[in-house]
Amino acid sequence: MDYSSLKRRIIGEPFPSSMEAHERLDKIRGLAIFASDPISSNAYATEAIMSVLIVLGSGALALTLPIALMIALLVGIVIFSYIQVIMHYPEGGGGYRVTKDNLGTSPSLLAAAALLTDYILTVSVSVSAGMRALTSAFPALRPYQVILALAAILLITWINLRGVRESGSIFALPTYAFVVGVLLVVLVGLSKYFGLFGIAPMEITAPAIEAQRSFTGFAYTWLLLRAFAAGCTALTGIEAISDGVKAFKPPEAANAAKTMLIMGIIAMALFGGISFLATHLNLVPAETDSILSQMARAIVGDGFLYYWVQFFTMLILVLAANTGFQDFPRLGYFLARDGFMPRWMMNLGDRLVYSGGIVALAFLSSVIVIVFQADEFAMLPLYALGVMVSFTLSQASMVKLMRKVGKLNPGETVDTAATTLHYEKNWLGKMLLSGIGAVITFIVLIVLVATKFIDGAWVIVLTIPLLIWMFKSIRMHYDDVAESLRTRNLIGSKLIEVADVVIVPIGDIHRGTLRALQYARRLSGDVRVVCVTLSDEQKEHVLERWNRFPQLTDHAQLVCIDYDYRDVLEPVFDFIQNVKENEFPDELITVVVPEFISPTLATQLLHNQSANVLRARLRAQPGVIVIDIPFHIHSRMRAREISQQVEDAIPTVATAEAETPASE
Amino acid sequence: MDYSSLKRRIIGEPFPSSMEAHERLDKIRGLAIFASDPISSNAYATEAIMSVLIVLGSGALALTLPIALMIALLVGIVIFSYIQVIMHYPEGGGGYRVTKDNLGTSPSLLAAAALLTDYILTVSVSVSAGMRALTSAFPALRPYQVILALAAILLITWINLRGVRESGSIFALPTYAFVVGVLLVVLVGLSKYFGLFGIAPMEITAPAIEAQRSFTGFAYTWLLLRAFAAGCTALTGIEAISDGVKAFKPPEAANAAKTMLIMGIIAMALFGGISFLATHLNLVPAETDSILSQMARAIVGDGFLYYWVQFFTMLILVLAANTGFQDFPRLGYFLARDGFMPRWMMNLGDRLVYSGGIVALAFLSSVIVIVFQADEFAMLPLYALGVMVSFTLSQASMVKLMRKVGKLNPGETVDTAATTLHYEKNWLGKMLLSGIGAVITFIVLIVLVATKFIDGAWVIVLTIPLLIWMFKSIRMHYDDVAESLRTRNLIGSKLIEVADVVIVPIGDIHRGTLRALQYARRLSGDVRVVCVTLSDEQKEHVLERWNRFPQLTDHAQLVCIDYDYRDVLEPVFDFIQNVKENEFPDELITVVVPEFISPTLATQLLHNQSANVLRARLRAQPGVIVIDIPFHIHSRMRAREISQQVEDAIPTVATAEAETPASE
Repeated sequence: MDYSSLKRRIIGEPFPSSMEAHERLDKIRGLAIFASDPISSNAYATEAIMSVLIVLGSGALALTLPIALMIALLVGIVIFSYIQVIMHYPEGGGGYRVTKDNLGTSPSLLAAAALLTDYILTVSVSVSAGMRALTSAFPALRPYQVILALAAILLITWINLRGVRESGSIFALPTYAFVVGVLLVVLVGLSKYFGLFGIAPMEITAPAIEAQRSFTGFAYTWLLLRAFAAGCTALTGIEAISDGVKAFKPPEAANAAKTMLIMGIIAMALFGGISFLATHLNLVPAETDSILSQMARAIVGDGFLYYWVQFFTMLILVLAANTGFQDFPRLGYFLARDGFMPRWMMNLGDRLVYSGGIVALAFLSSVIVIVFQADEFAMLPLYALGVMVSFTLSQASMVKLMRKVGKLNPGETVDTAATTLHYEKNWLGKMLLSGIGAVITFIVLIVLVATKFIDGAWVIVLTIPLLIWMFKSIRMHYDDVAESLRTRNLIGSKLIEVADVVIVPIGDIHRGTLRALQYARRLSGDVRVVCVTLSDEQKEHVLERWNRFPQLTDHAQLVCIDYDYRDVLEPVFDFIQNVKENEFPDELITVVVPEFISPTLATQLLHNQSANVLRARLRAQPGVIVIDIPFHIHSRMRAREISQQVEDAIPTVATAEAETPASE
Repeated sequence: MDYSSLKRRIIGEPFPSSMEAHERLDKIRGLAIFASDPISSNAYATEAIMSVLIVLGSGALALTLPIALMIALLVGIVIFSYIQVIMHYPEGGGGYRVTKDNLGTSPSLLAAAALLTDYILTVSVSVSAGMRALTSAFPALRPYQVILALAAILLITWINLRGVRESGSIFALPTYAFVVGVLLVVLVGLSKYFGLFGIAPMEITAPAIEAQRSFTGFAYTWLLLRAFAAGCTALTGIEAISDGVKAFKPPEAANAAKTMLIMGIIAMALFGGISFLATHLNLVPAETDSILSQMARAIVGDGFLYYWVQFFTMLILVLAANTGFQDFPRLGYFLARDGFMPRWMMNLGDRLVYSGGIVALAFLSSVIVIVFQADEFAMLPLYALGVMVSFTLSQASMVKLMRKVGKLNPGETVDTAATTLHYEKNWLGKMLLSGIGAVITFIVLIVLVATKFIDGAWVIVLTIPLLIWMFKSIRMHYDDVAESLRTRNLIGSKLIEVADVVIVPIGDIHRGTLRALQYARRLSGDVRVVCVTLSDEQKEHVLERWNRFPQLTDHAQLVCIDYDYRDVLEPVFDFIQNVKENEFPDELITVVVPEFISPTLATQLLHNQSANVLRARLRAQPGVIVIDIPFHIHSRMRAREISQQVEDAIPTVATAEAETPASE
C-alpha cells in the first residue's frame, strides 16, 4: 500500500475545497468542540478556591461562595467582552486580531505567544489529568501513564485530522453527558437543600469549625486574592470560540456569539451551583476525593448518577485538550497569514483542517508530557498565565475600540485595518465593562505570576519573549523573500545571462555518464567533462573508453585532474568554482550530474553519495544550475531484457574487452 | 569553523595517497597493533580452564597444566598454519582469501561472516571488561559503565582514524608494558619455585583436596573437553596479522610472518608460565580475585610490580579492542573489493585508513554494548565461535593448497586465482599439521556451540547465514549495476533521444520562476508552464503577471489547472507523467523546477518543501530529467543592495501595483 492510500485509510477521503462550507459547525457541535475546556474547568475551579482558603482554617471555606460568585461575574464580563470581539471581528482570530487592530503589532504578538503556550499546556495538562484519573481507577496502569498520555494525544490528533465536523460529532456526547450529569446533581442537591418539590431537606453535618488561624491584614488580603486567582482557572478556554468564528455555519458571527452565550450560561450555572453546594454542604477539600465527587456522593449516593458524573468528568478532562486542538491551528493560521509563522501553517489538509498546526501542537504537547512525565501538578504553575495575558489585552483593545465607536455620529462609519466600525448606542457601557474586565484579569495575572513564579511560571515568562522574537524573525525572513522576488521595476528580457558552458563531472565512462554527456552536448557547444583520477591506471582506463565513443566525445573537452588525496569532490568543486568565478562571474553556469537511481533504498545506500553531496554543495553556490541525469539501475532480469532489446536492434560488435564494475 | 577544518582538527592533516608506504608499520608497532587481543587473552585463558575443572573438585585443578600445554601446542600449530597463509597470500586477507582461493566463494563468505561478527564482539567484550575493571576500582563510576564503554569505543575509533602508524605508536607502550610485567612475574615465580639464582624456594600451602565429585565416563570426558574449549580463548586474535599483511613495511610477508612468530612465542610463554605457576601454587579461581592477580600477589606481594601488572592488564583488555579495529576494516576492504560489501568500505580516508569500516565497526560494537548494557559476561557465549569457524576453514584450505603443491614437480609452478604455487619440500608435513589443527579447532567449535547454544550462541548461528545472504545480495546488486552500465556493444550516438519539450511547474510568477522560464526557453521551443490554481483570484493574479512579461512568456504555453484539493503536487505530477507517457514514451523529457535557497537551514524550513518533494518523486520516474533553478534569498540588507543596483541600472517604470508575498 502506498503512502497516499495509507493516508486515505487513516484520515479519510480528501474533501474538495468547495466543500468547506459543508464542513462548518452548527451550534450543537460548535459548543461541544470549543467549550470542552471552559466547561471542564468547573470540575476543579471550586476546589481550587477551597484549597487556598483551607490555609486560613476550615471556617474560612465559607468564603468560597462569595469568591465564586465574583468569579462567575467576571466570567460574565469576559464573555460579554468576547461577544463584542466576535461581532466586530467576524472573521475570527480572537485576542490576536483585536489586539493587532487596536493596540498594534507587538502587543498582538504578546497575546498570540501567550495563547499559543497556553494551548500547548491545555493539551498536556488535560491528557495528564485524564490519565491520572484513569490510573487511579486502575493502578496497574500507573507505570504506563506517560505512554497512555501520549496515546491520548495521538488519538485526539487523529480525530482532529479527520475533520472538524467529524470531531464535533465525536466530542459532542461526552461534553453534553458531563453537563447533564453535573446539572442533574446540582438540581437534586438544591432541591434537597431547600426541600423543594416535596423532597425532604437533607441533613447536613454541622461544620467542625477550627480556630481560625491568625493572619495579619496584608497576608489575609493576599490569601483571598490568591483564592480568587486560583478560581480564575474557571476562565480558561473562554476565548476559544472567538478564534474560530469561521468554523460556524453562516451567519458565522451570530452563531458563534449565541454559542458563546450558551457556553457562558452553562459554565456560570455549573460553577455557581457547585460552589453553592460545596459551601452549604460543608465539604472540605481532600487529597484523595475531589470536591465534585464528594458533592455528588453526598447528594445522590454511590449510585448510577455518581458513576456517570465520575466517568464523564474523566472524559471531559481529556477532551478539554480538544479546545487546544481547535484554537492552536487557527491562531497559527492567522499568524502565518501575517507572516509571523511558517506559511505551511496556512495549508488546509485533506480534510480541510490546518493539519500542519494540528501536528505541530501534537508534537509540542507530547514534548511537554514527556518532560514533565505526565505529572499535571508540575505543569499547573505554567498554566493559565497566557490566557490572562490575552484576556487583559483583548479587553483593553475593546476599550480602545469602543472609544473610537463613541466618537462616531449615528450613521457614520470608520474603517480600521481589519474591520468597519459603526456607531453603537451602548458604547460607554461596553467600554466600561471591558475596562473592568481588563483590570481584574490583569490583577489575576500579577497574582498568578507572583505566586507561581518560582514553581515554574518563570518558564513562561522566558518563553513568551522568545516566541515573539521568533515571530519577528520569521516575518523578517518572509519580507526578505518578498523583496528578493519582487518583479516591480523588472524589465522582462534581462533577468540574468545563462553562460554557454556545461560542466559534467564523471568518475568513469559508462552508460550513465554517456547519457549525461549526450544531454550536455544538446545544451552547449562548450562541454567540459571533469574526471578526478587517483592513479595512472584509472586515467588510462578513462581515456581508452573516452576514445571509443567519438560520436559523443569529439566536441567535448575531457579534463583529467590527477589527485593525490581521496576526497574527489574537492577538486571537482574547485574546478566548477574556478570556471564560475574567472570565466562567467555574472552568468549562470550549468553542471550536469550523472546519477544512479537504484530500485530500493537499501541498494541506494551501497553507492557513494557523491552525486547527492555535490548537488548539496552546489546549491549553496549562487549562479550554478544543477541538472541531474538519472540512470535507473534495474534488477538483473530487467537489465537483461533491456540489454537484449538493445542487442537485437544493434549489429553485434565483437569486442572481448574485460570490463570492471563501475567505480561509483 | 567549517566542516573541513573541524575534521582536520580532529583527524589531522590529510595524507597524500603517495605517502601510503610511509604509513606502513615496522615489526615493533605491528606487534603492538595486531597482537593486543591474542596477548591479552593470556590474562584470562588459564582461569577459563580452571573455572570448568573446579566443577570436578579442586583436586582436578591439577589437570590445568596438561590441558594448557595441549592448547599451547594448538596455538603453535595454528600460528604455523597462518604463517603459511601469509607466505602464500602476501596481499593479506587471511582466512577469507585463503578459503576463497581453495574452497570456493560460499565457504569464504562463511569465514568472513564469522570473523566479522567476532571482530565486533572483540570490541564490545574488551571495552566492557576493561570498564568493569575500572568500575571495580572506582565503584562510584559503576552507574556510568555503559557510557564509559561507549566513550572508550569513541576514543579507540578516534585514534584509529588518525592513521595506522600513529595508533601503533600509542598502543605500543601498554602492550609491551603488560608483556614485560607478566613475564617478570612469571620469571620471578619460576625462580622462587625452583629455587634458582640462589633464591630460597617459596613455601607453598598444600592443596586442600576435596573429595573428587563422581562423574561417569562420558560426563567426565565432556567436562575435560569443555575445559579445553574454554582455554581455547587463548587462540582468539591469532589470525589478525594474516589479514593485515599489507600494513607492514616491505618485505611485507616476511615482516608479517616474523611478527606472527614473535607473537606466538610471547603468547605461548605467557600462557604456559601462568598455567604452570597457577597449578603449582595451588591457586583456586575466585569470583573477586582473578588468577593472574592471585598469582602476582603470591609471587611478588602487594608491591609495585603487582599494581603494574594489574594496571596494564586493565589497559590491554581495552586495547584488545584495537585488534578488531585493525581487522574489521581490512576484511571489509577485501569483501568490498569482491563486491560483497558496500564499495565505500574500500575508500581510504584522509589518514589512509579505511574510515568507513572503522566507523561501521564503532557503530555496531556500540549497539552491542548498549543492548548488553556493557555486561561482557552476557556477551561471552556469543564470542570466540566465529574465530573457530575461520580457523577450521583456513587450515582446511591450507590442507587443500598443500595437496596441490605436493603434486608439483620441483621448479614447476601453478597459478590459482589469487596466488602462484611453487613446489615445496615439506608439503606433507605442512599439510598434516594444518589438518590436525583444522580437526581440533572444528571439535572446539562443536563443543563451544553445544555448550553455549542456549546462552546466546544461537544469535551467532542465526546471524552468520544472514550476513552471508547480505553479502550475496550486495554482490547481486553490483552485478546489476555493471550489467546496466556496460558499454560493450554500445554504438555511441544512439543512447536515448532527448525530447524537445520542457515543463516548468510554478506556484506564482516572480523573479525565481521567471529565471526558470528564461532557462527553459534556452533549452527548447516547446516550453509548458504548469500552474495549479486553487481559486479564481489566484488564477487571475497569475495571468495578469504572465502578460506583464511578454518577452519571456510569448513563446511559452501557460497551463493553468483548476484544482479543488490542496495537494498541488498531485496534478503537476499527473501532468508530467501524461506528457511523458502519451507524447514522448521513448524519450527523455525535461522538467525545470524553480527553487528558493534560503541563507540558513532554519529559514529553509519556513518554505513548503514542494521543490524537494517534486524532485524526489520525479527521481523515481525513469526518463525524466530534473533541472533545479536555484534562486538565492538574501537577508534584507543584501537584497536591498542588489535591488538598488538593479534600480540604478534600469530606468524606473512607474507601476503602483500591490504585490503579495510569494506563495511558496
